[in-house]
Amino acid sequence: MISVSIVNVTSYTGLELLRLLAGHREFVVTSVSARSSAGQRLDAVFPQFAAGRNRGAGTSPGSLVIAEKPERTDLAFVCLPHAAAAETVLELQAQGVKVVDLSADFRLHDASVYEKWYQHAHPAPALLETSVYGLCERYRERIAASSLVANPGCHSTTAILALLPALSAGLVKPDIIINTITGISGAGRSLKLSSLYCEQDEDASAYGLDGHRHLPEMIQELEAAARDGGHPQTLRLTFVPHVIPMSRGLLATCYADLKEPSLTGEEVRAVYAEYYANEPYIRVIDTPPHTKWTAGTNLCLIYPTIERATGRLLVISCLDNLGKGASGQAVQNANLLMGLPETTGLPTAPLVP
Amino acid sequence: MISVSIVNVTSYTGLELLRLLAGHREFVVTSVSARSSAGQRLDAVFPQFAAGRNRGAGTSPGSLVIAEKPERTDLAFVCLPHAAAAETVLELQAQGVKVVDLSADFRLHDASVYEKWYQHAHPAPALLETSVYGLCERYRERIAASSLVANPGCHSTTAILALLPALSAGLVKPDIIINTITGISGAGRSLKLSSLYCEQDEDASAYGLDGHRHLPEMIQELEAAARDGGHPQTLRLTFVPHVIPMSRGLLATCYADLKEPSLTGEEVRAVYAEYYANEPYIRVIDTPPHTKWTAGTNLCLIYPTIERATGRLLVISCLDNLGKGASGQAVQNANLLMGLPETTGLPTAPLVP
Amino acid sequence: MISVSIVNVTSYTGLELLRLLAGHREFVVTSVSARSSAGQRLDAVFPQFAAGRNRGAGTSPGSLVIAEKPERTDLAFVCLPHAAAAETVLELQAQGVKVVDLSADFRLHDASVYEKWYQHAHPAPALLETSVYGLCERYRERIAASSLVANPGCHSTTAILALLPALSAGLVKPDIIINTITGISGAGRSLKLSSLYCEQDEDASAYGLDGHRHLPEMIQELEAAARDGGHPQTLRLTFVPHVIPMSRGLLATCYADLKEPSLTGEEVRAVYAEYYANEPYIRVIDTPPHTKWTAGTNLCLIYPTIERATGRLLVISCLDNLGKGASGQAVQNANLLMGLPETTGLPTAPLVP
Amino acid sequence: MISVSIVNVTSYTGLELLRLLAGHREFVVTSVSARSSAGQRLDAVFPQFAAGRNRGAGTSPGSLVIAEKPERTDLAFVCLPHAAAAETVLELQAQGVKVVDLSADFRLHDASVYEKWYQHAHPAPALLETSVYGLCERYRERIAASSLVANPGCHSTTAILALLPALSAGLVKPDIIINTITGISGAGRSLKLSSLYCEQDEDASAYGLDGHRHLPEMIQELEAAARDGGHPQTLRLTFVPHVIPMSRGLLATCYADLKEPSLTGEEVRAVYAEYYANEPYIRVIDTPPHTKWTAGTNLCLIYPTIERATGRLLVISCLDNLGKGASGQAVQNANLLMGLPETTGLPTAPLVP
Repeated sequence: MISVSIVNVTSYTGLELLRLLAGHREFVVTSVSARSSAGQRLDAVFPQFAAGRNRGAGTSPGSLVIAEKPERTDLAFVCLPHAAAAETVLELQAQGVKVVDLSADFRLHDASVYEKWYQHAHPAPALLETSVYGLCERYRERIAASSLVANPGCHSTTAILALLPALSAGLVKPDIIINTITGISGAGRSLKLSSLYCEQDEDASAYGLDGHRHLPEMIQELEAAARDGGHPQTLRLTFVPHVIPMSRGLLATCYADLKEPSLTGEEVRAVYAEYYANEPYIRVIDTPPHTKWTAGTNLCLIYPTIERATGRLLVISCLDNLGKGASGQAVQNANLLMGLPETTGLPTAPLVP
Repeated sequence: MISVSIVNVTSYTGLELLRLLAGHREFVVTSVSARSSAGQRLDAVFPQFAAGRNRGAGTSPGSLVIAEKPERTDLAFVCLPHAAAAETVLELQAQGVKVVDLSADFRLHDASVYEKWYQHAHPAPALLETSVYGLCERYRERIAASSLVANPGCHSTTAILALLPALSAGLVKPDIIINTITGISGAGRSLKLSSLYCEQDEDASAYGLDGHRHLPEMIQELEAAARDGGHPQTLRLTFVPHVIPMSRGLLATCYADLKEPSLTGEEVRAVYAEYYANEPYIRVIDTPPHTKWTAGTNLCLIYPTIERATGRLLVISCLDNLGKGASGQAVQNANLLMGLPETTGLPTAPLVP
Repeated sequence: MISVSIVNVTSYTGLELLRLLAGHREFVVTSVSARSSAGQRLDAVFPQFAAGRNRGAGTSPGSLVIAEKPERTDLAFVCLPHAAAAETVLELQAQGVKVVDLSADFRLHDASVYEKWYQHAHPAPALLETSVYGLCERYRERIAASSLVANPGCHSTTAILALLPALSAGLVKPDIIINTITGISGAGRSLKLSSLYCEQDEDASAYGLDGHRHLPEMIQELEAAARDGGHPQTLRLTFVPHVIPMSRGLLATCYADLKEPSLTGEEVRAVYAEYYANEPYIRVIDTPPHTKWTAGTNLCLIYPTIERATGRLLVISCLDNLGKGASGQAVQNANLLMGLPETTGLPTAPLVP
Repeated sequence: MISVSIVNVTSYTGLELLRLLAGHREFVVTSVSARSSAGQRLDAVFPQFAAGRNRGAGTSPGSLVIAEKPERTDLAFVCLPHAAAAETVLELQAQGVKVVDLSADFRLHDASVYEKWYQHAHPAPALLETSVYGLCERYRERIAASSLVANPGCHSTTAILALLPALSAGLVKPDIIINTITGISGAGRSLKLSSLYCEQDEDASAYGLDGHRHLPEMIQELEAAARDGGHPQTLRLTFVPHVIPMSRGLLATCYADLKEPSLTGEEVRAVYAEYYANEPYIRVIDTPPHTKWTAGTNLCLIYPTIERATGRLLVISCLDNLGKGASGQAVQNANLLMGLPETTGLPTAPLVP
């Protein structure tokens, strides 16, 4: 068995890791930490993990005591906010612990781009050399060979997966619009007025209009895909996220003009199907996807189509922002890091309804 | 007092008309009709309108008996589906009843465009000559002079109001993307699997990807505005609606490139503020709007901004799809039709939370 | 016109007062206060009240500047938490301002009961002599003659209205169970983990099991009703509230044994209908009520019935916790206080859907 | 491997069985049936089960074709409505197929009680002799020895588990009130006006006031438990269910008077803890439970407490109505039926948020 630690377990991504790892046959959570709840038993903070006197119903981590700092394990999932994450990652790496970092700290290769978007110097620039961007569909081999994975952002994962085949094959012009709608769990488990039930219920709004931090990540990865595909281009990308009244789920609607207007929907769909032919968690489907079809899973559903009237390419993709958009993808990365089959412990059957 | 009839009162737009007219000091609902519930008292079908023994708490229409066909009144609101609406409108107009038609039947001026989008010949082409598109902000005078108003679609109202100033002033290029998200009440009060609570809760999806019927309406009105503003152009417009887990509310995010890239956000906002300077229900605000800020009102909130990185114009607008997007706007039109102050009986303070 | 002040306007009850008073023809909000937002314009904090350049669309309070303390007005609505409320009420009363206090500070006549439940001495015991419990259906005349009204709690209003006729007529035994379910707005607009969307969505739970503070209020008023009706009794009352995923609405299900088991449902319903015969906001209906039928109104719907198998009396009542359960009832009380028709400015048509 | 059939797979309980069985290592779904969708591939009706080209991500049943009638398998889960269920069960049993029936048809031992509550003669009275009530915590051995299990109702499971220890130990008097609140998935995946999102959102109401069909089931099982515990009594039980705006979850609040008023909360909790000491899915906890803590699991959480003021026993229990309240319990029963460890394939870590 492989010992695993969850750092900042009281976050929503931490909670989802607890759920996923409860069904994982190789990883055992042996350490959980969170500054604010240190010293308490996990099931005192989260009674849903009450241990019970199970007759074989699976091990529950409920009896673990929440530590202030992570203990040494084979692998750590770091669920801290940016900057705080980098500091902890530095310590863990120094101890030889492999890390999947769910923060933004190691996603951008260029420390100056990081500084521009996060308004402070990068806390661990040396690790930018060795870290790998954890989009398994792109960097499977590099991830397996590394010891630090930067788990992608939820908006980024959805949008990049939606556009990878098109950019890699050089199908579209550089003007791209990415419009996303997402549940409120993406805002985290912290006390914000805008996250109150009464504020978010029956409400939809756009945010991040001065530039959302997932934008440079999208540009970095989509331009890299275009380059690697032999169709390099500089993108002129607009990204507008919206938050809506649901807990989980993220749907991206991407708009781009085709270079070759005569391309049909079937031809585009064939390019997508081929690109993702061997992927365990990507489904290229022929109907507009619903976020609910991915609830609790590691799936990403993608629907590319050509709009009749204008000939524009529309790609609609969706996933569970806490699944493939965060903790699910983190487990997928961890499986690769530890040499396990990539799909270990990752559900594909969604909670519907 | 002016006698009013609501045709197909058992629809969500009919219900909202009942609510709004309960607070209207000139209109009295004297007739309600609906084929499926004919013969029942209104408060047997909708106990919320139970009459009570009020001591001055306002008149309630609860004691009205639902008729199969509308009785003759000064004014009728027609809440029927397309085609059925046109037939009823024909009869009402023949009786001299003024009509606000909430269906799509009289929105498109060109019967051949109607036939293309609705897949059947127009049921009353002669009335297309006399009907007026009921967007008060554009056609106030014509509405006041007419006897048949085609109440605009909810997506159309939101998107057209968002883009009117820009097109009228010739600010943008013809490539426009309109992305909307809306509550489920827009799908009506009919039995569809996709409208069930368990299907729509925690779910977001795009629909109408083969062409939503509000698209030709948007093109007709936006091109007319460009023409009338002295900046005619043929638009290349993509419109993708999404449905999300809420009852009411509609938010449009519109993307377009500026003809003159040096334009600042302040300059654009000034154009918008000037355009809507005298409008009672349009608010040009300087923060991204929330649908909840319009719940139960006749307001439309509009936020135009320039994206820093790309210089693109983004305009975000929102309203209550049953308010300014349907029944509220219908009352506004009815006020004009009957020579009343346009704002009679229309609330602007939203139900928050 | 009567000048009105809203103290702690940034609360949900304050916001609902703003909405209701926007449609009130006698009250004008001339002062709003809230410590945390003092110095800001109201429409900077709540853009939904953006003033616009209305042509007669009603006055908007959006241009008021939020004060730290209330200015002197004819009437004040105090939306502060208990204890803080009493201190402000003392000052306002000293200035001759009439007050509707939405806190719990003046609901309990007995300062020692208050101290037991609120764990501190009553801040203004002298005012307990002159204040009136603001349940209009019981104390209409006394309220009209007073200058300080204690607006009842939301659970209390729903449960008391459900049981008043039965206790007043001496129909039931003293063992009573009151089970309520309510929306989350009752928890207020403050930052609590349990009020986050992601915590409350898809969740139901009981709370206040160690004794909810609305319990002594219910006992005080129900025993008084029994006494005044000539059937005095000491109640053995259990009250368990539950919170569920909705913003507004409160439904009470009350269980009691009949003294006279042969009583029929029709007979009980007749007692209820008679008791509330002249009430403008109480509807005794013959079908189980839905909270949504009261959304945004000042209505309370009541359904009394006898369970066939056991002969038990069940009474189900509901209202909008921010309407008749708080701000609506506060306006009703204010109307009485200022000698206006009791029903001025109070809607009865609900926001459905 | 054991071949399994799901009859009426297009129901919500059928869908949840698909999800649970996707993670079950012994059962393989080899047949799915549903009259309305017969002839279609499962993933055409439910795109969330799109097969993908998985590299080891678990088998998906998406490629199965929905049959009109179930094919012969080792085991069948019958998700049909009552009466239709009994007919199918008769045929399956005749073929030697073991059955877990999720309908109400075999829950009541007495055919005359069935006839009274379901208004028609029992369709298969002979099978009442051999069927077992599938509450594993009570009838584990009998279930293992049988071939037909009647899966309990969701309200019944929650309420019976809440009260079993108290009745078995003879702690309470016969007057019992059971108040439940539940999500809308319990109403099934059929087209009812009251199940529409816009009708159920922001709404709470009581239903089944003329007698809900889970009531005789509760009485049968609770009186049996009292009898088996040596404290026989005839109960006077009132049961009122409520439906609220959520998809899943069921919470029961049970009220009863203690025979021995001096009993403390700790003593009662000890009785409960002891009763359920070896149960894998029952958690006796010391805080009011939340339905969300059980989402997607087979857990039932129980909180017994004594109300200070009145000395009444309150027991609050909750579960996922599609989990332990239906499909989860069905799998637990199926495990017993087929001689597998009872906990095979049943998750205990909930989907939070």
